Amino acid sequence: MVNSRSSLKTEVREKMRDGVGSATLVHLVDAEKEKNVKLLAEVTLPPGTSIGRHNHENETEYYIILSGAGLVDDDGKDTEVKQGDVVITGGGAFHSIANKGSVPLVFHAFIVTY
Amino acid sequence: MVNSRSSLKTEVREKMRDGVGSATLVHLVDAEKEKNVKLLAEVTLPPGTSIGRHNHENETEYYIILSGAGLVDDDGKDTEVKQGDVVITGGGAFHSIANKGSVPLVFHAFIVTY
Repeated sequence: MVNSRSSLKTEVREKMRDGVGSATLVHLVDAEKEKNVKLLAEVTLPPGTSIGRHNHENETEYYIILSGAGLVDDDGKDTEVKQGDVVITGGGAFHSIANKGSVPLVFHAFIVTY
Repeated sequence: MVNSRSSLKTEVREKMRDGVGSATLVHLVDAEKEKNVKLLAEVTLPPGTSIGRHNHENETEYYIILSGAGLVDDDGKDTEVKQGDVVITGGGAFHSIANKGSVPLVFHAFIVTY
């Protein structure tokens, strides 16, 4: 099956995970129809916004940075990320991501369950 | 955990799945260490190359087109894909992807097992 870009659903989440401002998610699949996939989305964080700190139990989330730069709290360790970097969070670990830059931060977010 | 782009392993596969030419895979994670993930890679197909027709049983593969354009055999239906389009193949269905254009075709390939 091919989901064309124009057919994808866009969702704006305010204060996502108690973060700052609005995150825009373009859902690449209808996750309810997929097996072991809870989220597969392109996320955009405008400058000054964030997704708040949260953890993942019985699932792993992957952030793959597409453009812009972000500051990640990687289970307690602040790490700057940029295009091509990958954030892996599972096994109960926590993360958050914030756009401290001047251009949008865009990344793919995949949550795989088990 | 953060995998910086510079730490990622690059693999060149010749005639991948009996396709044409060389596909370059940048492995975004070490899939052997992940649960229910068989592949999470950025794939580049130069002009004139392809990944041959193959199917997926007990797993789903997602192609998310990042740049360039491709021709996908989506279980028997030829479909042109471009930036932002998503190819979903599982449940025994077949697919292939070819770069018929003049610029590299780059996409994320993500295989979830179940």
